[in-house]
Amino acid sequence: MPERIAYFGPAGTFTEEAALRYAPKSELVPCHTIAAVAVAVAAGEAQRGVVPIENSMEGSVTDTLDLLIHQSNLFIQRELVLPIVHCLLVRPDATQEDIEVIYSHPQALGQCRGFLEQRFPRTTLVAALSTAAAAEQLKKSDYPTAAAIGTARASKLYGLRVLARGIQDNPANVTRFVVLGHTDHPPTGDDKTSLCFSFNDDQPGLLYAAMGEFARRRINLAKVESRPTKQSLGQYIFLIDLQGHREDTEIKEALQKLQAQASMLKIFGSYPRYVAAKR
Amino acid sequence: MPERIAYFGPAGTFTEEAALRYAPKSELVPCHTIAAVAVAVAAGEAQRGVVPIENSMEGSVTDTLDLLIHQSNLFIQRELVLPIVHCLLVRPDATQEDIEVIYSHPQALGQCRGFLEQRFPRTTLVAALSTAAAAEQLKKSDYPTAAAIGTARASKLYGLRVLARGIQDNPANVTRFVVLGHTDHPPTGDDKTSLCFSFNDDQPGLLYAAMGEFARRRINLAKVESRPTKQSLGQYIFLIDLQGHREDTEIKEALQKLQAQASMLKIFGSYPRYVAAKR
Repeated sequence: MPERIAYFGPAGTFTEEAALRYAPKSELVPCHTIAAVAVAVAAGEAQRGVVPIENSMEGSVTDTLDLLIHQSNLFIQRELVLPIVHCLLVRPDATQEDIEVIYSHPQALGQCRGFLEQRFPRTTLVAALSTAAAAEQLKKSDYPTAAAIGTARASKLYGLRVLARGIQDNPANVTRFVVLGHTDHPPTGDDKTSLCFSFNDDQPGLLYAAMGEFARRRINLAKVESRPTKQSLGQYIFLIDLQGHREDTEIKEALQKLQAQASMLKIFGSYPRYVAAKR
Repeated sequence: MPERIAYFGPAGTFTEEAALRYAPKSELVPCHTIAAVAVAVAAGEAQRGVVPIENSMEGSVTDTLDLLIHQSNLFIQRELVLPIVHCLLVRPDATQEDIEVIYSHPQALGQCRGFLEQRFPRTTLVAALSTAAAAEQLKKSDYPTAAAIGTARASKLYGLRVLARGIQDNPANVTRFVVLGHTDHPPTGDDKTSLCFSFNDDQPGLLYAAMGEFARRRINLAKVESRPTKQSLGQYIFLIDLQGHREDTEIKEALQKLQAQASMLKIFGSYPRYVAAKR
């Protein structure tokens, strides 16, 4: 029986594309929300789950960070990086001149703002719940003057035509995805470790002291970021990505020191650092 | 002639509410995007602009951070904090039993998820470009079975009825807004300073060394956060809020040291720390 992989769907999203690349022979299980992916894995309906965590233009996917911090005890066991290529999708018989309305998720509309202003200055933009939902909406409507912004794969799934490919304003638009599972990954020699921590007091220097534990041991920080605790404005949870594995001696020591200082410390897992495949 | 204040509109959004509280006697100028607010102020069409910068549930408003980092040379001269109270709006003659479709911005729908699942488990949720756009859509449609999630003020502007008030899942939902202008604010004795910086190398310890300049001088950091540089994944711009004014001796010194180490340093301004008014 093939492994089941839950992903933040529906079919035709960039996360499905990431899941397909990660596990092309697995059975893919679309989930409506990022939280539902974690629930599917925790409940054993899938062995692993794929969710987006960071985009080079938009920054972190806060739903995924909040899931890792507050709701889930799953581990990150892999990271994947995929280029984001937005396409303008139309019904098979439509041409550019026909287009009066363009559907997409507000974020995708925003990422293609330059293209839209130049080529469709008088077109109405309409929000959809996801890029795939926009494509589906387009397929269902009997409205020949509509278009959608979505993935090339959505065009196949919904019988649409790609009128323009790569319409995002910034070509360096990539998204990082993580694979969640019941364990993280054994050391490979080129790993990353993701974790979060917070302090009861917002005393000056507490975060600084914590970062000192890493700096002193020459542990490279790939990322530092903060999220609201959701209790009161101005209280933060800090998220850090380290270079190395949590079983490395230096990292182990630093994490023990940090544990003693922090009011909360949660390790999301260690996993192989993503290296782009040579073509 | 009254002062003109640009804000991220349309009328009926929480940002309009913040602008009304900040400058009740001014002429308010709605702008379609956060960037357009800065453009209106820079071009002299308004003297100041009000934009959201951070929500206690969702975290930073990345459009505003990216505007301050990359696009605008305006200064922050004030901060304001407002509770976010979502309301369920219906047409005057509708009742709860009638509702089959609910419009709102995806973020507002997300913040009311618990309420919606409990009270409207079978209702269709439809995305809108803003909460005010949702209310407008409801007013325009001759669809008695629709509702919208938005502000109490939107109900007045669009002739709707508030069916339920405060329907957000977390009562501690507040948003911080900033007032942008051509100068920042003189010292008051209880100030904050916002700035960003980045490094050419992502050498271990550079951010740590920068934070050391503040820690060593007992300067409290109210916030540390990172944003993508938009050039490549894994390169970040760090954003810091300090307690104190940029003209304070200690802060001035620390910023000079930081300037020497960073490849880029931009001070968004110093402004009075927001203190909630006593009721």
